[in-house]
Amino acid sequence: MAVGLQMPTDLYPVQGIRLGSLHCGIKADDSVKDLALIEIAAGASVAAVFTRSHFCAAPVTLCKQHLAQTHGARYLLINSGNANAATGRQGLDNARQCCAAVAAAAAVSVEQVLPFSTGVIAEQLRVEPIVNAVPELLGTLDVNGWLASAEAIMTTDTIPKAVSQQLQIDGQPVSITGIAKGSGMIKPDMATMLSYIATDASIEQAELAAMLDLLVASSFNCITVDGDTSTNDSCVLIATGASGIGVDRNHDEFFAALRRVFEQLAQAIIRDAEGATKFVEITVAGAADEADARSIGFTIAESPLVKTALFASDPNWGRFIMAIGRSRVRQIDVDRLDLYLGPVRLLHRGLPDPEYREELGQAEMSREEISVRVDLNLGDASTRIWTSDLSYEYVKINAEYRS
Amino acid sequence: MAVGLQMPTDLYPVQGIRLGSLHCGIKADDSVKDLALIEIAAGASVAAVFTRSHFCAAPVTLCKQHLAQTHGARYLLINSGNANAATGRQGLDNARQCCAAVAAAAAVSVEQVLPFSTGVIAEQLRVEPIVNAVPELLGTLDVNGWLASAEAIMTTDTIPKAVSQQLQIDGQPVSITGIAKGSGMIKPDMATMLSYIATDASIEQAELAAMLDLLVASSFNCITVDGDTSTNDSCVLIATGASGIGVDRNHDEFFAALRRVFEQLAQAIIRDAEGATKFVEITVAGAADEADARSIGFTIAESPLVKTALFASDPNWGRFIMAIGRSRVRQIDVDRLDLYLGPVRLLHRGLPDPEYREELGQAEMSREEISVRVDLNLGDASTRIWTSDLSYEYVKINAEYRS
Repeated sequence: MAVGLQMPTDLYPVQGIRLGSLHCGIKADDSVKDLALIEIAAGASVAAVFTRSHFCAAPVTLCKQHLAQTHGARYLLINSGNANAATGRQGLDNARQCCAAVAAAAAVSVEQVLPFSTGVIAEQLRVEPIVNAVPELLGTLDVNGWLASAEAIMTTDTIPKAVSQQLQIDGQPVSITGIAKGSGMIKPDMATMLSYIATDASIEQAELAAMLDLLVASSFNCITVDGDTSTNDSCVLIATGASGIGVDRNHDEFFAALRRVFEQLAQAIIRDAEGATKFVEITVAGAADEADARSIGFTIAESPLVKTALFASDPNWGRFIMAIGRSRVRQIDVDRLDLYLGPVRLLHRGLPDPEYREELGQAEMSREEISVRVDLNLGDASTRIWTSDLSYEYVKINAEYRS
Repeated sequence: MAVGLQMPTDLYPVQGIRLGSLHCGIKADDSVKDLALIEIAAGASVAAVFTRSHFCAAPVTLCKQHLAQTHGARYLLINSGNANAATGRQGLDNARQCCAAVAAAAAVSVEQVLPFSTGVIAEQLRVEPIVNAVPELLGTLDVNGWLASAEAIMTTDTIPKAVSQQLQIDGQPVSITGIAKGSGMIKPDMATMLSYIATDASIEQAELAAMLDLLVASSFNCITVDGDTSTNDSCVLIATGASGIGVDRNHDEFFAALRRVFEQLAQAIIRDAEGATKFVEITVAGAADEADARSIGFTIAESPLVKTALFASDPNWGRFIMAIGRSRVRQIDVDRLDLYLGPVRLLHRGLPDPEYREELGQAEMSREEISVRVDLNLGDASTRIWTSDLSYEYVKINAEYRS
């Protein structure tokens, strides 16, 4: 299913990070992992961003509390199969009990354990399977545990998502490795579904948080499957410092490598979106400001009529026009607008291009990876959004999710 | 297909209105009508509202020009099969030629003819079939032509939409009859797809325009199929005055009857939405202001995850929570929120209702007509939105629209 996405290979260990995973019993199928643990060496910097949903889940609330109490997070505990969202005070207690079990077994304080959950909403999380599994889970910790953990956090994902980069700085190897899960309910708002990215470079805490904000803005906050934002979206960036190499965002080579990891993980979520048969990049250029560019980009990306045309490989590009037309953009001049499908110009200064022929559009729409470009010719702001199509399979997956 | 929608019957003629229709050749299938004409007696008041799309279609632009020049509109010319949108200057010329043909044949000025189009976007409208058909079209004008015209303006609609009311005022019968077309690309913004409503009451021009604004706000602007707003949305309200009875919006009985016609036509569009298997009413109450209520209502109504759960009759109501959570509402307190499915309470003051059982939710979701109620318990503002579900058939219809 996943568009142009392979099983991850060549994942570099990150010094100072070990990962464990197993099946504890949250998911019914005992051949499937449902619990992961990420161990962070003492002294690392840890930054995180979370969903902006009014209904943020219990683990998100608790993560924020713990991060307010300490920057010295040592364990990330992640379960799939249950989101622990809309579960009230009991949900918070349950998440806290899971953290306490890890804290006791690993001899750290409870604030040093951050909880994450993904799965069904509005059902209480069963605590015992998790608490009982903690000793065994600690025993599975391994520097090479990235892929297994990427598998353990999957829900309707069809393929685990992991990306790795290694570069040499001052003659020393520095590694960056990250994992993510996505699939549906994807329009992250200030963060993604779940993603954990670590490097063994040394980065000061405030700098790390600033880097995370910048990188999320151009990666996870540029993707949409269905416009639906989860209650549990979380993204964590860790710098262990174990390589002994210090960097900040002005280190071009490092920052570019880190950006690639963020962008490739964000793309992987779209490539494996529920029912996706196309990977679509929408570029909006020449806008008066970035908000306008994003408004047009997301309106196109989330239009069910655009998405079904993409699924059908139908160059019915009147639907792009419809979407641009209804976007909540502040400044537009339809007589200046250019529209492209790949290299093929559809609209020039607001009018159908006389050179355009249906077969040219057809060839572009038939590709598995499609690029759409809108140029407003008004200003200098631009954005690019990644999205997928709307297929029978999307309806099937989401109509039958719980059955 | 259409949910709870019958073939219209008992359509009262409106004195001062005649309607004609035929197949002229815009649509390939010559057993299907594609052209309608509504004749308005001299002296009527005519008010209209149109799409707010940045890319409004040529006929919308021309309608606005003609209405600015005269309130004495005498003919509405409507073709289906081609939207004449994104067609530039040639599109405007084409629409004007069609109007000119009617004006010449009927001996009125060209400004007294208003053009409307619905169908495929970004293809030039062929003028000759329309111009050539005008004499025959005038010959089909009939006071009983409402149903035939409702058929002629259909695109992917499966059933014609027409609603009629008659009441006695001062011992005189006053009639209200309206037709509409909808189906997909439905989230009217200040107007609907195409709808024409007439009464033989006498209503002063400015009063008629004010009534239209009020009625559209609580009918066509409260519906959404897919959040997609057409380039061609138009709604026209006509008061011929031929009954000799004068009314304004303070005439409770008349205004209530007129409101029923608007609401039933708006509902009919949703009941016959592309691929619809459910008719869903979403009420948002207790909001701080109406904008907040509408934001939550439309976020629920347009969420693909909510819509697929509705299609599957799956009481996976965590998806309602997700949608409320991501809505762009300014004021919310999740600890005060109540959520109902029909009479069944799901959430009470932000927590799952202890009385709730899955089979109660299942019974409500299995209905063909579903009601969802959110109470924010914050203020006095409320709204109600009508929408449909997202089915395989929606994807099929829109993936295969042009093939």
